[in-house]
Amino acid sequence: MNNETINMSISPVVGPALLSKSNPVFCCYLFWSSLLILKMMLMALLTARQRIKTKTFANPEDLRVGKTSDVRFNDPNVERVRRAHRNDLENVLPFLLMSLAYVACGPHPLTAKLLIRIGASARLLHTIVYAVLPLPQPTRAFSFFVTFGIVCFEAIYVLIAAVKYI
Amino acid sequence: MNNETINMSISPVVGPALLSKSNPVFCCYLFWSSLLILKMMLMALLTARQRIKTKTFANPEDLRVGKTSDVRFNDPNVERVRRAHRNDLENVLPFLLMSLAYVACGPHPLTAKLLIRIGASARLLHTIVYAVLPLPQPTRAFSFFVTFGIVCFEAIYVLIAAVKYI
Amino acid sequence: MNNETINMSISPVVGPALLSKSNPVFCCYLFWSSLLILKMMLMALLTARQRIKTKTFANPEDLRVGKTSDVRFNDPNVERVRRAHRNDLENVLPFLLMSLAYVACGPHPLTAKLLIRIGASARLLHTIVYAVLPLPQPTRAFSFFVTFGIVCFEAIYVLIAAVKYI
Repeated sequence: MNNETINMSISPVVGPALLSKSNPVFCCYLFWSSLLILKMMLMALLTARQRIKTKTFANPEDLRVGKTSDVRFNDPNVERVRRAHRNDLENVLPFLLMSLAYVACGPHPLTAKLLIRIGASARLLHTIVYAVLPLPQPTRAFSFFVTFGIVCFEAIYVLIAAVKYI
Repeated sequence: MNNETINMSISPVVGPALLSKSNPVFCCYLFWSSLLILKMMLMALLTARQRIKTKTFANPEDLRVGKTSDVRFNDPNVERVRRAHRNDLENVLPFLLMSLAYVACGPHPLTAKLLIRIGASARLLHTIVYAVLPLPQPTRAFSFFVTFGIVCFEAIYVLIAAVKYI
Repeated sequence: MNNETINMSISPVVGPALLSKSNPVFCCYLFWSSLLILKMMLMALLTARQRIKTKTFANPEDLRVGKTSDVRFNDPNVERVRRAHRNDLENVLPFLLMSLAYVACGPHPLTAKLLIRIGASARLLHTIVYAVLPLPQPTRAFSFFVTFGIVCFEAIYVLIAAVKYI
């Protein structure tokens, strides 16, 4: 944090930017965020597989695929994958946006990389125990709260770092 | 906008980057986006509280928590918090992404900071009157449309600023 | 990629930053992401129009608007727009975040601009054939998989580019 601030006050030339490939923490963020987004995209395929397997289609124009004659909702297998997908929207997207803001604040590199790696891995585990191989609680609750806690920590870190710009 | 463009044409050295801690507008964005993300995360706890209070669990493996024997859906208290949460996904996440793009365009600092502060505050109000203390309309509609209008304004600003790169 | 890496190892001064207005690829991203976000915001108006037209309100405090006496769910017209909106959350937001990470990696400018333009256009088409003018399949599936494929390509590109920061 000091290094760049000093540079800024001396000249308009910036040092290594935090949101650029020259920052290893940002590269670490790029890797794990891509992995999480790829995983989120695969949820759509998982839903499609369950829809076709159970012939549960939500739109009249999709019925031809399953050779069925009626739209259906509330199939438990489809709904489980959809809940897991929605949980991703509610947690992975905030995690990605929050980690980006956190990296932009220039946190300690080792801490930041550790938080990104653990937070992303916990979400991968969450999907497995929710949508692929349902395990008894508290496995899912544990993986949920790991990322949850990391997002809250990052948010409080950034809030404190940027509080004078409120 | 001019300042950086001029620098760019003279030398490959950039002036103060817009997406960096040296830009007060970006710092303001960091503060308010962290606050909004923290609020979104708390929605999950609010849902969990309602689920436990009304013993409404969506997954068979969660039933042990409430000592109930059947999954349940459609509890009005749970569904209200879930609708508020989904409304956040539909509005807060676009607001965060749009404001980031807007800040990256180098808008007038005072305008930009004002829009970010008002847009974020309106979403905090929206959650309170939707999920915590339901108030009669048009309180919720008002807070919804404030952020809605700001996102649209920012989008049109960026569309015009970047139209030659279509 | 080489150009900046070389600069970085010689001096702390960075060349033209990838996530700045001086990068035409980033400007192209700004334009199309604003258009997609604007479209997503309009989905809320589309939902509101269907809710008022079919008098389907989900909250007791909204009933006054439609002069009805009961909350209703499951109206097929409302649900279709809501499914289209949720599909946007599941695909547009990851597309925006993934493309940002992809642009930050410094891909070939022509390829990157082409992917952003095609990916965003496909989502505009998706909304039209899903929520505005429902067309028989596989129009919707086609537009869905175009953006889907682009997000996966970008994710794999970034994963390979950043693999050593795992």
